Amino acid sequence: MNAHKITGVYSAAATPLNADGSPDLGLFTEHCQRLLEEGCHGVALLGTTGEANSFSSSERRNILEAALKAGVPADKLLPGTGVVAIPETVELTRHALSLGVTKVVMLPPFYYKGVTDDGLFTAYSQVLNTVADNRLQVILYHIPQVSGVPLSVPLIGRLIEAFPETVVGIKESAGDFNNMQAIIAAYPGFSVLAGADPLLLPLLKAGGAGCITATSNLVADSLRAVYDNVHDEAQTSVVDAAQARINAYRALSNSYVQIPTIKAMVGLKTGNAAWKRTRAPLMPLSEADYAALAENYAKLP
Amino acid sequence: MNAHKITGVYSAAATPLNADGSPDLGLFTEHCQRLLEEGCHGVALLGTTGEANSFSSSERRNILEAALKAGVPADKLLPGTGVVAIPETVELTRHALSLGVTKVVMLPPFYYKGVTDDGLFTAYSQVLNTVADNRLQVILYHIPQVSGVPLSVPLIGRLIEAFPETVVGIKESAGDFNNMQAIIAAYPGFSVLAGADPLLLPLLKAGGAGCITATSNLVADSLRAVYDNVHDEAQTSVVDAAQARINAYRALSNSYVQIPTIKAMVGLKTGNAAWKRTRAPLMPLSEADYAALAENYAKLP
Repeated sequence: MNAHKITGVYSAAATPLNADGSPDLGLFTEHCQRLLEEGCHGVALLGTTGEANSFSSSERRNILEAALKAGVPADKLLPGTGVVAIPETVELTRHALSLGVTKVVMLPPFYYKGVTDDGLFTAYSQVLNTVADNRLQVILYHIPQVSGVPLSVPLIGRLIEAFPETVVGIKESAGDFNNMQAIIAAYPGFSVLAGADPLLLPLLKAGGAGCITATSNLVADSLRAVYDNVHDEAQTSVVDAAQARINAYRALSNSYVQIPTIKAMVGLKTGNAAWKRTRAPLMPLSEADYAALAENYAKLP
Repeated sequence: MNAHKITGVYSAAATPLNADGSPDLGLFTEHCQRLLEEGCHGVALLGTTGEANSFSSSERRNILEAALKAGVPADKLLPGTGVVAIPETVELTRHALSLGVTKVVMLPPFYYKGVTDDGLFTAYSQVLNTVADNRLQVILYHIPQVSGVPLSVPLIGRLIEAFPETVVGIKESAGDFNNMQAIIAAYPGFSVLAGADPLLLPLLKAGGAGCITATSNLVADSLRAVYDNVHDEAQTSVVDAAQARINAYRALSNSYVQIPTIKAMVGLKTGNAAWKRTRAPLMPLSEADYAALAENYAKLP
């Protein structure tokens, strides 16, 4: 279908918490296994939906190790390892590699805003030159509405040119379809993965590689149906129905603050209210919002 | 003059680097000592100007420990300890306290944007309740143009009410004089410290407590002259001249990207070109910009 090194449906997995606010490792690994059973090609844990930046380095390492210990295959895990300081991005990336996890999603350093492409190129280059492991495959992470640090099309090209075997894709979470098309046109074979569920179908039709999305926590089977059948004209109605279902879940999750709502919906799906918990600064839904969410969730296709 | 628990001229100290990019601890501690000799009441190390979020937790601890080992008194150090994950903010704050450093500047968690006051109140409360040390004095850090996370006037009030002995001030780096006045009016005795040098004089006249600024790396003596003489009408011309000098340095530093320029200017002041170095994503000035800067620096009052 294409020459992408990374292609498929990946879940931006949410991270459940214990009552004391620590990661619920048992429930998390159950969740990872369910996501794979439901059709995800892999689990992009420890991203924005996973509240990764609200966890300490040691909590992040524990979460990844727990997934592996529970039997989730290393080649199906794509942890986020990009943090705000280069030495710690290096440490987390090396930690993943030390466990045999070779695919990571990497934010740029995100404290300073308005930094130059030279600065971001230098930052990523220092990480990759320091890690210096030819097994590593990096998915860049473009989510300017949260990180405050966009990755420009020319910057992406500089990184691909400097690290052609390593910098293999991008998670485009700005939801900017024109930007996705521009990246695909500029860098054939480079994996563009949608961060917004409604764009999976149009992106695949336009030559994209797949998705890493939040709604996959709920409807991985539908995302997989879109991915598997997009190029089969006999399956158009199946594909369109699946994408419509995805969009309905996405629309409901975006009726409130998205990440707490996705987590609450996983709780509704699985019958486990522990999923309502979030780590500050994200807050759980109010009881009233949760009740309304539950009512609307029950009506989803 | 006022009942502020923290008042004075504090330097948002820059952090020099070795050729390999590691913090130059010897040069840093020399810099801290010079800042105190030049008139600073204290050194607010490991802030935005200090590139703190570009350093790992262990580098941050090493920098603070180096200052103490070199003889900088603990009560003159105000490290930044607020990072993106609550457990690590707790760890850095506890580390400072373990060394006898009781005053810290604390960013809110800054990855997620558009978070609620409830979320930020919960985040700060969890940190302070977990640290649970009645020696601690916290200066909140409002720098929305960098952190992306503003601290509202009502949020400040909730934190003061919940932690009256601990939450004693704010570094207002938005440069919004109306906001500073609103905080002073709402919370008498709470220390409002300007993060922008040109506002030191007007802020002191309006009942503010002082400043934590970048230009203090260069003209601490003038900031101190403003602070010491602001309420002495016989010294108006001295104060105005000092503030004008401060503003001239600030204007030149803002002619280029501020933090690399401040560092380059410290290098020009002290004759040590090592100060030109920055950590990515911040980049040193180009040779052409540096040459122009040096020419203009030589003309400053």
